[in-house]
Order: sequence, then C-alpha cells, then structure tokens
Amino acid sequence: MDTRTFTVTPVGIVRAGNESFTIEVFGPFRPALRGLSGFGHILVLWWGDRVDTPECRGETVCRKPYTKGPETVGVFATRSPVRPNPVALSVAPVIGIDTASGIIRVAYIDADDGTPVLDIKPYLPATERVRDVSVPVWSSHWPQWYEDNAGFDWAAEFTFKE
Amino acid sequence: MDTRTFTVTPVGIVRAGNESFTIEVFGPFRPALRGLSGFGHILVLWWGDRVDTPECRGETVCRKPYTKGPETVGVFATRSPVRPNPVALSVAPVIGIDTASGIIRVAYIDADDGTPVLDIKPYLPATERVRDVSVPVWSSHWPQWYEDNAGFDWAAEFTFKE
Repeated sequence: MDTRTFTVTPVGIVRAGNESFTIEVFGPFRPALRGLSGFGHILVLWWGDRVDTPECRGETVCRKPYTKGPETVGVFATRSPVRPNPVALSVAPVIGIDTASGIIRVAYIDADDGTPVLDIKPYLPATERVRDVSVPVWSSHWPQWYEDNAGFDWAAEFTFKE
Repeated sequence: MDTRTFTVTPVGIVRAGNESFTIEVFGPFRPALRGLSGFGHILVLWWGDRVDTPECRGETVCRKPYTKGPETVGVFATRSPVRPNPVALSVAPVIGIDTASGIIRVAYIDADDGTPVLDIKPYLPATERVRDVSVPVWSSHWPQWYEDNAGFDWAAEFTFKE
C-alpha cells in the first residue's frame, strides 16, 4: 500500500453547449499546444469534479450499471467518473487549434460544460489503436469503432438515467 | 484560470522485470477489479513520479524531441511523462486477472518498475478505437496499430537516449 498523495491542477476547461465543444487552455499552458495541429484526435484527461467526494471516491463496485451486464461491476471495469481517482479519459476529434488563444475546437467531448481539464495528449495509432480487440460477451454488441459511437443507442445500455 | 488543486492517490503499483509485467492493485481497491476479466486490453493511468518536480512540471515545450520532427514541440503534443500534470496513459494487453490477490498480468507496459498506478479502465473499441486517424507528416511513418509497435525502431525516432 502506498498512502502518498499527489496533486494535480487544471490546465484548462471544457466549454460545451449548443452543439459546440471547445477546450480552453489557460494562458501559462498555451505554449504546450505547439505541434499538436495535424493530429486528427486528442486524448483529454479531465477531472470528475462532480464526483470528487469521499463517498464517490470510496465506491469500488456499482450495482447493475449495464442493462445487459452482470449484477455487480467493479469501478475499474466501468468508464464512470465515479472511481477512487476521478480522472476520466475522452478521445476527441480535432476541428481546429488556435495556440495563441488556447482554444481547441473539437467535434464532441463527453464532459460537462465547466469540467476541469488536466491534460491533453496526441492520439497515436501506435499506442491507442488496437487491431485485435476483445470484450466480455455482455458488451460485444457495442460499437467496434469510435466513429460508430454516435449512432448507437447508449441510453438502452445503462440502468442509470440522467 | 483555475488555481485549484486536486489530490490523487495510488491504487496500485507497476512491477516490471525479467520480461514479466504485472500491476499489483492494493487491498482496498481489489473489489474494483470485478468484471474486468474478458476485456482484452486495459488503459492504465500512472504517475510519472520521476518527473514530479517543479522544474519538469513547469516545462511547456521540448527542444527537438523527435529526430524527424519540428525544432520545438509543446508537451501536449508529446507522450513524455514530463508535463504539468505527470499522468501518463498506457494501453496494456491483459494476460490474466486475479481479483483476490489484485494481480493483473499484462503482456507489456511502458512504465518503470515501482511506478504508482492511479487508475485502471477497460479499453473499449467504441471509445478508443479510431478508424480514420490522421497524424502530422513527420510522424506518418509510425505504426498504425498498437500491435505493430513492438517491431518498430522507436530508438531511431527520439533524440533523447536513456
């Protein structure tokens, strides 16, 4: 067991609304965007500030999160922001990057307006794009590609409704 | 600008050596592994403890990190653990998971022995597997799939030698 704690701090914020999705990078971090143009997708690490509570961070299992899944699922087997360290990961397709203003326009990101952004990385085929995937039977009908995500009826998969 | 800080704490540790790679999840977090078996790959978020210094965390650009790349590259355009929040992401192919002992055997992970693990997530094709990728010209000769990574001469790509 390692009981150290480490600190992270926001480098930007998600702006989401009216079909428009941007990531606004704060002034001191804008030079870090140099050379990111040209990557079609980015990885965004964001902080689940709505679930940064001792109760949520103490949860290790969820009761029946997926309609077609098992009765209990550990939080490391889900993508919910509810987990010991509420760091979420989203792939986002890049529309445009303006380094001077720190604005990254993306086609979509599944994070709420105002969400703190911790990190931005280039999506590299060599490190993220797995040819031979396998998933449990109960999720085998989920889309096999990021691009097919938008047309899928995710609402039917989750027992939790917003 | 958002000057808040958030805290994260290790949920496990990387054990790497002798061609053997495991992630050891600490006792209190082991129930979180339920249901993870069946996923062929996991996403591992780990803490770059060797670069968790004010100097490294204050760097926003790297000078010529790639032999065939631009003169300066922002840290958000690299995968180096040197960045404002030293949270690294690795995809790892799962060999086996023992929930009781908290041991996840993986085929490979590009993190040093002893590295603190912050989070484990299932690799989902629907959220991570991008069909239509694009990358800058200077990196277009890099592998297009995770599986082709191992056979590639990465040492020739980096100006930095360990």
